[in-house]
Amino acid sequence: MASGFIAVHCGAGHHKPQFHKQYKKLSKTACRAGMKVLRQGGSSLEAVKTAVLVLENDPLTNAGFGSNLTTKGQVETDAAIMDGKTLLYGGCGAIQNVKNPIELAYDICIKQAETQPMGLVPPSLLVGEGGLHHAKAAGLKIVKNKELISPKALKQFKKYKSLLNYAQLIEESQQGPLDTVGAVCVDDSGHVASACSSGGLLLKRPGRVGQAALYASGMWADSFSPTTESSVAVCTTGCGEHLMQTQLAKEIGMDLKNNSCPITGLYNSMTDKFIKSRYLRNIKQKLGGALVLHITTNGEGVLLWGHSTESMSIGYMRTTDVNPTSLISQLPKETTVGSSVNVGGAHFVLSR
Amino acid sequence: MASGFIAVHCGAGHHKPQFHKQYKKLSKTACRAGMKVLRQGGSSLEAVKTAVLVLENDPLTNAGFGSNLTTKGQVETDAAIMDGKTLLYGGCGAIQNVKNPIELAYDICIKQAETQPMGLVPPSLLVGEGGLHHAKAAGLKIVKNKELISPKALKQFKKYKSLLNYAQLIEESQQGPLDTVGAVCVDDSGHVASACSSGGLLLKRPGRVGQAALYASGMWADSFSPTTESSVAVCTTGCGEHLMQTQLAKEIGMDLKNNSCPITGLYNSMTDKFIKSRYLRNIKQKLGGALVLHITTNGEGVLLWGHSTESMSIGYMRTTDVNPTSLISQLPKETTVGSSVNVGGAHFVLSR
Repeated sequence: MASGFIAVHCGAGHHKPQFHKQYKKLSKTACRAGMKVLRQGGSSLEAVKTAVLVLENDPLTNAGFGSNLTTKGQVETDAAIMDGKTLLYGGCGAIQNVKNPIELAYDICIKQAETQPMGLVPPSLLVGEGGLHHAKAAGLKIVKNKELISPKALKQFKKYKSLLNYAQLIEESQQGPLDTVGAVCVDDSGHVASACSSGGLLLKRPGRVGQAALYASGMWADSFSPTTESSVAVCTTGCGEHLMQTQLAKEIGMDLKNNSCPITGLYNSMTDKFIKSRYLRNIKQKLGGALVLHITTNGEGVLLWGHSTESMSIGYMRTTDVNPTSLISQLPKETTVGSSVNVGGAHFVLSR
Repeated sequence: MASGFIAVHCGAGHHKPQFHKQYKKLSKTACRAGMKVLRQGGSSLEAVKTAVLVLENDPLTNAGFGSNLTTKGQVETDAAIMDGKTLLYGGCGAIQNVKNPIELAYDICIKQAETQPMGLVPPSLLVGEGGLHHAKAAGLKIVKNKELISPKALKQFKKYKSLLNYAQLIEESQQGPLDTVGAVCVDDSGHVASACSSGGLLLKRPGRVGQAALYASGMWADSFSPTTESSVAVCTTGCGEHLMQTQLAKEIGMDLKNNSCPITGLYNSMTDKFIKSRYLRNIKQKLGGALVLHITTNGEGVLLWGHSTESMSIGYMRTTDVNPTSLISQLPKETTVGSSVNVGGAHFVLSR
């Protein structure tokens, strides 16, 4: 049987207890969809795309359908994917009308591996109308923008659109789950991949691009030669600008690639490169989370999650598992949101 | 008299001998404009903005007016700026109608330092129509897109639009100067800044965003506490996707910040992090250049340039200089474009 592992997250933030069941169920559904790809011999890149697509399609998450609305009442999505095998990345930002932005990011990513006519350099990041144009040409599903607006997102938009409600917006947005969803995966060949997708902050400015579109900030995947070093895949979630400034996904990936104790390594990365980062020295509350896959040369794997938010919703599945596992990781009650880090993990072995 | 130093570049690539005079003259004009800001007590951030604005306005460069046209015959510009003092960055990508994209990047950068109502997170990267909207609200000069099209750019577009001319396009675009222009500066307070601006590759796809818009790829600036470490400012130019994948500006900045021999440091960074980068392992010809400012705690400064292209056009000026210096740096004839690096530099001392 093909060996492999997939994990997903539905954002870090504050997951209200009454919705825990829904988040856990959705995480499992996304894991199952990604696992199906792996079991059919698909690559980790295809599996993370498929898992994120499931998360995008659910109105529970702020990605794809059900994304937060901009100040102009539109859905504008960001997504990106990185292939540890080819080290290629594809990203799209401020995209309208594309049903599944992760499919657009995937298409941009894989087209870079194709031989180009006469040495033309294919784009790695497409935004706005140009991104939509690429999606159409690639035959992806295009919808009317209003078809991406969920009743919940519209209700939120109307509630907070008034400037008078900004104070409440800030408070609630810090208490609600932050935006990005993501997935990390290792496939039978030992190659890793990472993907993320986001509708961005509630009432964000039109044209604002966040970490979920951007190389090194929202995702990172690096498959090392299986005989020499470890493979690492990372996706991040939280306040986009702060994840961009700290380039948290790549920093974690670089810190962990040869770390013999990944769980301590992730704690240190999250603390030193995010909570105490000099690039965020004027930011009071640093809200972020990361989902990390670390595979050593002998096939030992560990899934790790770390977050400075109150909670983070996670699901994962080994190829040998009948059912996925899902959980809501919680910051210990005595610690402070935005300045403490909670790290957890699960071990697995890739059968060879 | 205020102490300081400014340097600019008009791209790396192949500068045809008959245009050397024009490039050198323009570099000097841009240096003088930036120096005027410094001499009036302006910050390095204001000075690099002003110098790049001069470069944008000249049709000789592929930035602002005179930018390359997309496959749809439009000008779409990228620009970014980073303030070493605040460590804040502002970027804009795929922007139409804005006369000076560097002014938009500057505005996005400085607005992040302002106190936001109720903790709202201001955007650091704006693209497409949302970027244009921000520029309008900030009172920047908006023009018709055709006012950004120079006769030369239109002629090039018409010449290469036919698919039959793609081979020639590739050949010529590799022989012509690559896109980005940029500036680095240190001001009287010892703080550094960096800025870049680009029209992107000729016949690029609409919506394609390149390194000139992107944090860590196109520019980097980091003012360390003057008593403890050195300050570094970097801007890069070359093939956007490859500069993004290698995040060359930040990598050089990180490598050099505590390097006692910056010129060797830059040579090594350009070689190890770009020419031999594992992220570009499938790319035959790596075309890039970097302009770097390195200031030690005792006020000793060095301007460095490095490029793997045939030539790079550079200008620089100390506050104590009556006239700027300009030059076209050339790769030695016996070396190979895209796989060798040429590094040069100039020394200066900040008067205290």
